[in-house]
Amino acid sequence: MAVLSKDNGVALYAQVRETLRNRIVNGSYQPGERLPAEEALTAEFGVSRMTVRQGISDLLDEGLLYRKRGIGTFVAQRHVHRDHNRLTTFFDSAESESFEARIAVLKQEVLLSRHLVARSLNILEGEPVFHIQTLRFADGLPITLHDEFIPYKLCPEMLDHDFTQVLSWEALERCGFRIKQAVQRVEAIAADGQTAKLLETEIGAPLLYKERTVVAEDGTPLEFALCYNRGDRYSLTTTLTR
Amino acid sequence: MAVLSKDNGVALYAQVRETLRNRIVNGSYQPGERLPAEEALTAEFGVSRMTVRQGISDLLDEGLLYRKRGIGTFVAQRHVHRDHNRLTTFFDSAESESFEARIAVLKQEVLLSRHLVARSLNILEGEPVFHIQTLRFADGLPITLHDEFIPYKLCPEMLDHDFTQVLSWEALERCGFRIKQAVQRVEAIAADGQTAKLLETEIGAPLLYKERTVVAEDGTPLEFALCYNRGDRYSLTTTLTR
Repeated sequence: MAVLSKDNGVALYAQVRETLRNRIVNGSYQPGERLPAEEALTAEFGVSRMTVRQGISDLLDEGLLYRKRGIGTFVAQRHVHRDHNRLTTFFDSAESESFEARIAVLKQEVLLSRHLVARSLNILEGEPVFHIQTLRFADGLPITLHDEFIPYKLCPEMLDHDFTQVLSWEALERCGFRIKQAVQRVEAIAADGQTAKLLETEIGAPLLYKERTVVAEDGTPLEFALCYNRGDRYSLTTTLTR
Repeated sequence: MAVLSKDNGVALYAQVRETLRNRIVNGSYQPGERLPAEEALTAEFGVSRMTVRQGISDLLDEGLLYRKRGIGTFVAQRHVHRDHNRLTTFFDSAESESFEARIAVLKQEVLLSRHLVARSLNILEGEPVFHIQTLRFADGLPITLHDEFIPYKLCPEMLDHDFTQVLSWEALERCGFRIKQAVQRVEAIAADGQTAKLLETEIGAPLLYKERTVVAEDGTPLEFALCYNRGDRYSLTTTLTR
């Protein structure tokens, strides 16, 4: 039972909001949990339904809560934030954001390159490439499906690595390449059946999709990657200058 | 009727792909148009269904075509690409990408700031802000819904501008501010009813959602914006350095 103050100068809806926020932050309300019904909160706080709604509305705006049409209001999953000005790895983000990172390797194989991959890597169609497909988890929840393609000729020892522990960039650096930069194109797409299944979400759910080409100091394309990130658990930040 | 060559050293599926690509690029197949059925293409090209499928599959990978489950294969809408390393305007992009840009002003008003906006602009809740809601069109198709918020006290003459012609940053610069940078958070979200209607898409369609805070040389937050971009018509590119 929360006790709100009527005379501390803080609007009642803001007190409702901050009380709910504390419950989310301290884990009394868990990610994915349904928020108690408006009637229950109205009774608990001893305020009007309008006041409860205004407090909830602020947390919806902030993205701490989300609505499912006709079902109710839920506590949002924590987002994994990635800084997209620097090339940082998934493990770097895990450290700075304090989440437990885990990588599962789904495929690790040599393929003959097809059109989009060959074009992006500036190799001929049919030239062999490593394909490494991984699923990345933050705090045990799947957030990203990665398909990485690396020309075989650049680093034949690629296949020996344990990609649950070593990232492809590190493997490339062990092969003597210095990574200069990555060019990323970002889109929002709908999850198809297979991707939805792997990411444990619904078909049609919004995904932040990235196509990334990693380039060496001398301009050689080293890696082409397709990254499917769950929209409800992943966001990226960029700083733009004029 | 397309005539493929069996002896020019180019695989038949690649010839099918390039013929289809030419038809998309030269406008014989229009954006949003349904691709002829596999049977029709098989008959036209005089090749196997597998060959047609492989050609189509490459163009699906490239994003020039897309599939609607159970309906067919369609020509994708042209994407508006935005470079997200520099702060460029919608009109800059229109010039470099050669699309016709148009901005419709849906709202231009003074509001009392609420929680998320006040916090992002570093002002008190209840302080007045300009709210400018615009819908941006590329070649006549809606691509972005913008909600921009600017503290009233910074630039009271803001309300006088014609925001179909002047962008909020230009208006701020006319008020004497020098824009230093913008911090953007990017997510993929599902379109709600109202946003879907304005962007002429379906409820639940993937949107590239951006929250942007524009900051002056002295660190003052000048503008907070929410941008809803159609996933099928908008992509952004960033270059990351190590």
